[in-house]
Amino acid sequence: MSKILILSGSGSDFPVVKKASSVLDRFGLDYDVAVASAHRTPHRVFELVSGSEAEVFIVIAGMAAALPGAVASYTLRPVIGVPVSGKLDYDALLSIVQMPPGIPVATVGMDRGDNAAVLAVQILALSDNVLAKKLVKDRESMAVRVKADSEKMRKEIAERSNAWH
Amino acid sequence: MSKILILSGSGSDFPVVKKASSVLDRFGLDYDVAVASAHRTPHRVFELVSGSEAEVFIVIAGMAAALPGAVASYTLRPVIGVPVSGKLDYDALLSIVQMPPGIPVATVGMDRGDNAAVLAVQILALSDNVLAKKLVKDRESMAVRVKADSEKMRKEIAERSNAWH
Amino acid sequence: MSKILILSGSGSDFPVVKKASSVLDRFGLDYDVAVASAHRTPHRVFELVSGSEAEVFIVIAGMAAALPGAVASYTLRPVIGVPVSGKLDYDALLSIVQMPPGIPVATVGMDRGDNAAVLAVQILALSDNVLAKKLVKDRESMAVRVKADSEKMRKEIAERSNAWH
Amino acid sequence: MSKILILSGSGSDFPVVKKASSVLDRFGLDYDVAVASAHRTPHRVFELVSGSEAEVFIVIAGMAAALPGAVASYTLRPVIGVPVSGKLDYDALLSIVQMPPGIPVATVGMDRGDNAAVLAVQILALSDNVLAKKLVKDRESMAVRVKADSEKMRKEIAERSNAWH
Amino acid sequence: MSKILILSGSGSDFPVVKKASSVLDRFGLDYDVAVASAHRTPHRVFELVSGSEAEVFIVIAGMAAALPGAVASYTLRPVIGVPVSGKLDYDALLSIVQMPPGIPVATVGMDRGDNAAVLAVQILALSDNVLAKKLVKDRESMAVRVKADSEKMRKEIAERSNAWH
Amino acid sequence: MSKILILSGSGSDFPVVKKASSVLDRFGLDYDVAVASAHRTPHRVFELVSGSEAEVFIVIAGMAAALPGAVASYTLRPVIGVPVSGKLDYDALLSIVQMPPGIPVATVGMDRGDNAAVLAVQILALSDNVLAKKLVKDRESMAVRVKADSEKMRKEIAERSNAWH
Amino acid sequence: MSKILILSGSGSDFPVVKKASSVLDRFGLDYDVAVASAHRTPHRVFELVSGSEAEVFIVIAGMAAALPGAVASYTLRPVIGVPVSGKLDYDALLSIVQMPPGIPVATVGMDRGDNAAVLAVQILALSDNVLAKKLVKDRESMAVRVKADSEKMRKEIAERSNAWH
Amino acid sequence: MSKILILSGSGSDFPVVKKASSVLDRFGLDYDVAVASAHRTPHRVFELVSGSEAEVFIVIAGMAAALPGAVASYTLRPVIGVPVSGKLDYDALLSIVQMPPGIPVATVGMDRGDNAAVLAVQILALSDNVLAKKLVKDRESMAVRVKADSEKMRKEIAERSNAWH
Repeated sequence: MSKILILSGSGSDFPVVKKASSVLDRFGLDYDVAVASAHRTPHRVFELVSGSEAEVFIVIAGMAAALPGAVASYTLRPVIGVPVSGKLDYDALLSIVQMPPGIPVATVGMDRGDNAAVLAVQILALSDNVLAKKLVKDRESMAVRVKADSEKMRKEIAERSNAWH
Repeated sequence: MSKILILSGSGSDFPVVKKASSVLDRFGLDYDVAVASAHRTPHRVFELVSGSEAEVFIVIAGMAAALPGAVASYTLRPVIGVPVSGKLDYDALLSIVQMPPGIPVATVGMDRGDNAAVLAVQILALSDNVLAKKLVKDRESMAVRVKADSEKMRKEIAERSNAWH
Repeated sequence: MSKILILSGSGSDFPVVKKASSVLDRFGLDYDVAVASAHRTPHRVFELVSGSEAEVFIVIAGMAAALPGAVASYTLRPVIGVPVSGKLDYDALLSIVQMPPGIPVATVGMDRGDNAAVLAVQILALSDNVLAKKLVKDRESMAVRVKADSEKMRKEIAERSNAWH
Repeated sequence: MSKILILSGSGSDFPVVKKASSVLDRFGLDYDVAVASAHRTPHRVFELVSGSEAEVFIVIAGMAAALPGAVASYTLRPVIGVPVSGKLDYDALLSIVQMPPGIPVATVGMDRGDNAAVLAVQILALSDNVLAKKLVKDRESMAVRVKADSEKMRKEIAERSNAWH
Repeated sequence: MSKILILSGSGSDFPVVKKASSVLDRFGLDYDVAVASAHRTPHRVFELVSGSEAEVFIVIAGMAAALPGAVASYTLRPVIGVPVSGKLDYDALLSIVQMPPGIPVATVGMDRGDNAAVLAVQILALSDNVLAKKLVKDRESMAVRVKADSEKMRKEIAERSNAWH
Repeated sequence: MSKILILSGSGSDFPVVKKASSVLDRFGLDYDVAVASAHRTPHRVFELVSGSEAEVFIVIAGMAAALPGAVASYTLRPVIGVPVSGKLDYDALLSIVQMPPGIPVATVGMDRGDNAAVLAVQILALSDNVLAKKLVKDRESMAVRVKADSEKMRKEIAERSNAWH
Repeated sequence: MSKILILSGSGSDFPVVKKASSVLDRFGLDYDVAVASAHRTPHRVFELVSGSEAEVFIVIAGMAAALPGAVASYTLRPVIGVPVSGKLDYDALLSIVQMPPGIPVATVGMDRGDNAAVLAVQILALSDNVLAKKLVKDRESMAVRVKADSEKMRKEIAERSNAWH
Repeated sequence: MSKILILSGSGSDFPVVKKASSVLDRFGLDYDVAVASAHRTPHRVFELVSGSEAEVFIVIAGMAAALPGAVASYTLRPVIGVPVSGKLDYDALLSIVQMPPGIPVATVGMDRGDNAAVLAVQILALSDNVLAKKLVKDRESMAVRVKADSEKMRKEIAERSNAWH
């Protein structure tokens, strides 16, 4: 039984779905994936959500992005919303984050399927020590990468600077 | 059987609902009014819409205004959306107007319950000659008011100008 | 006699006009198409609108998009406005949607000629049962496509995930 | 025969009209004032503009401010547009300034009826030496006021600062 | 040992803190409250976070709202960010939601301390059945309130409408 | 002696300068062209403006576009400002249009060097009948082009529509 | 000889000037204050800047806020710009911060005269040890205030919470 | 011992870092370069800043750009922030410039690493006459380049104009 359901509003959200699924694969978590549109298939959204045993929902949508809020209206489990960038800067972000009192959506940044997945892992790790330890390692590896990037940039700048003098 | 259903997402939308109902009263049209929240009462929205014989829906909502789109997902009748102004400039407008292909919401301006009602009247007047004639009179009376405003402004400015010289 | 007139403000709006005409073709509806600029040819706009028997107007324009409002000022029939995207995010949308009391324009999303056409069909279907049935089928086919997209995405993600493990 | 016609889209624009008329009174220029709505009284706009001998038009409007562009579509004389502030930050400004090629509107700042009048004076002063001299004096008096403001602020700050020490 | 720590960036965020604490009181949850500024007291932020056993952090901040991200950088527990409204529309929201890959902040709407608390409850309820049942009741009571609002609005509109006829 | 001076803030504004110069060439008007930066060469701006006999200034600039306002501070002749589009949507437009009381800049749309030139022609035509007649012809030719565009679009849509049936 | 010159574009900027002067008084620094408008008194700006021995300039302005950039064009000393809030959200900020290559303005937040002053102190403290020590104390006192705010908020929330139970 | 430390939040900021380092190379100044993320490596940021003897910090970051503020929270030396452009227009700019009272960040324009470097040079030149003289020369060379650009543009426009006649 998967603990996470990734829902996206359209097949065109695939690149953002992939960012989320890659992170979950890295943490070894099972998850389900489905496309359902709040506007074109409202009953399907209800059926998928009410028929799911998922503990956390990751919901990805663009434009008048109603899907995350629709999922939140059908479940009491945490819902994470990912706004997908499009023609206008703020439509998806505001459609997801500005929820009314009582029905929150945990919104992450534009196209940040990866961060939605990390947040889902953090939530599940509260009652899963193995997962919690993987999170520690994951963050430690970030620091290693930042240092490597730093070393690389320092060298490139030094070479350019020497070439100047 | 009312031909128009006015739905608002919250009791706090009352001033905008009143603008719509005042116009419909002026045109002598019956209508129903209800509050239903896309996020707090999704099933109620479905029941109200699917149980309604309304030919046109006027849907009023603020913030992540999902209600107009939710109504549009449950009916094939024209849905008119009215964004309600709040803390942010664009959240309700973009949440209503940026619908996906196939599921339009006819969006009017910020807090323009009155224009939603006029648009509903225009749609119903396509098959109702009495209503169509009322529309003609209504617009003629606008022109009269504009001229009266013009005369008033001209006089006030002339007095100020004379006081100057 | 066509029941729909599509007006665009410039020849460069052709891609958005096509989206609208494709939908109307799919529903088997007749329509007229014309270019007229509110600013460069104001009298032509008046002549086209006042000389038209159209029941619904679809009006497509960008930048300081005055054309939808100009059409609405000359007719009491429903006017659907389509903002065309350009250099700035909000010029066309705000120029179309923020109409004064009494003269609504039914605004749809950025470049959504298709949704303008669907909205026109919904309005005409109020007094045309054949059209109403076509709308039902059209929406059913959307649900089919969403399910197909879902199946496709699920498979692609599963393959990626298996490759990982 | 007045050389300037001030048109506003609504009686509620009166405060901005007054700013314009006050400046014109100061320069001793005749002008006409009228209210006309591009959307509620399109023919009235045409009649006022085509029947006017004005050399410069000052046009004041808010929201989907189509009036300045409508005036510009009926005349080849310079048209100055003044966006009026309202619920949204950018609707009137973008609706006025983003005109298509060939039909400019000389846009001034939000609610800047005064600057529209100064611009009109600058244009008329090109062929009116008396007016040109008044402009010189007007700008000189600005510098005097700025210096007076400076002296006043310096004193107030010095008093506060001394109170501190 | 409290499972929730509410951190705010300034004493002026008190009204938003209250919204969060009221919800937590309603659910009978213990929580700690502290003020700490990411910019004025960076070490205090680290000490409070690293010394806390909280399972969920609710972090409230305005302007260049760095505090939620700072907390997220010191913990692997879920961090919920609440943007506080101020002079500019989008500074706090964007400063909180646009986190880099790997360090999510679960962002809720402007000033929505209440929704941050509900989200925290949803997260804790995943492993607390009593809390989960309280959530069900809480949402049921929302539906009751919406219906009451609906009845009240329907009556007020009916009275106005009757007065008209 | 040229009656128009085109000033641009940077060599990179060349495409917008060309739009302006092409229109002036079409109207057979002499003009001067210069690059001067309000920030990098403030004295040069003063010298160019105070040493010019131009009756109208066209000033083109991007980003924190101070040049149009700087020119307006040195002359009492009409100054037309053209915002150049760049990384941000509104920097140049707001930097040009939001002038303080007393010092207007006649702002045209984004990158609209052409409209700046037409506005300059309109201003000069107030005292030049030959130019006024050219303006009439110019606008008539616009109407011809709009009709041609209309005919072309109508045909293309008809072909597509026929192919469908 | 004052090391800091505070320039503001208008007498109405007094509240922001006071924020800056209060901080400088607290640090015991001398400063001069003057009003000068980039648009109404361009020569006065040049004279004040070129005649000043100030090491740092604090420049405060609203709307199309050209004054900070104008000062930066006349000096090679650091110029700190303070955008003043007005009718539009972003005009002053963008007009100040988006300077061309080579002529920076050190921009601080909306109405943040206080932060402009602290930044000026930080710059002067690079070669003034007494000032540097005052900065240390100043920041330490911030931490004390934050802790006091925290204690106060904790108590008020605890009282509210107890009243609930 | 370098007097300037350039910090960037990510290896992807390299192009903006290069703009800064090129300017510093031109002025013959030593500097250090490092990558450190406020969110992924908060302790590294503290160590780099507290272990540095730099007199000025140039800090480059995008999205929820917390790095400049984080650096400012650890030092009393001037911190210059450079917002890096990304998917949204204003996230980095607002995250950097809208600092709370007492902790300024000297913000420059979008991607303006070059201006951050010039500002750093201006600050250091207050106590370094050689550097001050280099600044004078640098600005003089700007004026030369502007004149060359002007001459080039004038010629190109003249050729186009002649080709027309």
